[in-house]
Amino acid sequence: MSKPMLQVALDTLEIPAALKATRALAAEVDVLEVGTILCYAQGAKIVAILRALYPDQIILADLKAADAGTTVAEIVFSQGATWMTVICCAPYATMEAALAVAKKYQGDVQIELYGDWTFEQAEKWLEIGLTQVIYHRGRDAEFAGQKWGEADLAKIRKLAEMGFEVSVTGGLNPQDLEIFKGIPVKCFIAGRALYQADDPAQAARDFKQAINQHW
Amino acid sequence: MSKPMLQVALDTLEIPAALKATRALAAEVDVLEVGTILCYAQGAKIVAILRALYPDQIILADLKAADAGTTVAEIVFSQGATWMTVICCAPYATMEAALAVAKKYQGDVQIELYGDWTFEQAEKWLEIGLTQVIYHRGRDAEFAGQKWGEADLAKIRKLAEMGFEVSVTGGLNPQDLEIFKGIPVKCFIAGRALYQADDPAQAARDFKQAINQHW
Repeated sequence: MSKPMLQVALDTLEIPAALKATRALAAEVDVLEVGTILCYAQGAKIVAILRALYPDQIILADLKAADAGTTVAEIVFSQGATWMTVICCAPYATMEAALAVAKKYQGDVQIELYGDWTFEQAEKWLEIGLTQVIYHRGRDAEFAGQKWGEADLAKIRKLAEMGFEVSVTGGLNPQDLEIFKGIPVKCFIAGRALYQADDPAQAARDFKQAINQHW
Repeated sequence: MSKPMLQVALDTLEIPAALKATRALAAEVDVLEVGTILCYAQGAKIVAILRALYPDQIILADLKAADAGTTVAEIVFSQGATWMTVICCAPYATMEAALAVAKKYQGDVQIELYGDWTFEQAEKWLEIGLTQVIYHRGRDAEFAGQKWGEADLAKIRKLAEMGFEVSVTGGLNPQDLEIFKGIPVKCFIAGRALYQADDPAQAARDFKQAINQHW
């Protein structure tokens, strides 16, 4: 089982705040994620800014695209994204269109799992060539008090057994990672737990230590 | 039955192209939509730009938000949006959070219907206070050859009967509108059919004429 990577979700509203986070964290994490909020607020030029600063890092544009797969993918991959996300309820045609552009740039597309997706849909995603999913305890679900539980773990295990690379996110702290032990998680994703920590680099090292301890 | 409104979807990549479209069309249409593509590409400042230019127009930010309802809604409503969209597979908590912000600004939230939503979900949307939906023949579905059909019309009718205000979009031309006759459509939405027409203002008037003829 390969070791999970660590991904920072940059969910700031302003570009300087995102760059303050990456200055502290880029050397400590594996993936820089341009959060949906940041992309809505500032536009996709933030992808180009991060690519200019971090030419060798994996950069994910978390667009949660639902339509216009070709155009949206071209916007972010042409500016240097490595991966982008589509939302799980996007039409298969949108996923396929985004993936075709991604492949042109040696990139990939991840499916964000929100709401009532099904394993039947997941079979179809594999058929059309999508192999990465993000299992999400949404921010609003988190605020509403929803906790990580066995139901989440069972779904994540099943997705991994089907052949997906599964990233995991939603209010994660280093002490949460142990419950995912034994599952081949692709990336653990954290946002404010990293960049709003008193010492962001140390917070990233605490995540890495938990990963090294359990994988 | 009130008369359907006409909405232009600004799905350009650059701000000047969007403003060229609004200069020709703002006086002819009822709603200016900041398309998802434009918002991804340029960020939400385009909402503030349009509000500065068109203080009295309905402005829709088509974000298709899936999470972080409060933050995302605050971004666009604080810059002058009248409506914003959430995606149908967003958690109910996200929809409620976005709606709470919208109401604070005397705005509203529309649900974009993509993929496998259900009428059971739609009942829940009404329960939590969401009354506007956008029925979508997606761009990629359109490119894949999917046509408007009786199945679409039956769903649109049922949504209207449930109490939703239903907007309709997806490759519409003036001659298509007749098939929706008898349905209380809230807005007909067109993008390139309007702003890429040889004479955009005349194209808008052709839509309006079709609306006046059939409603």
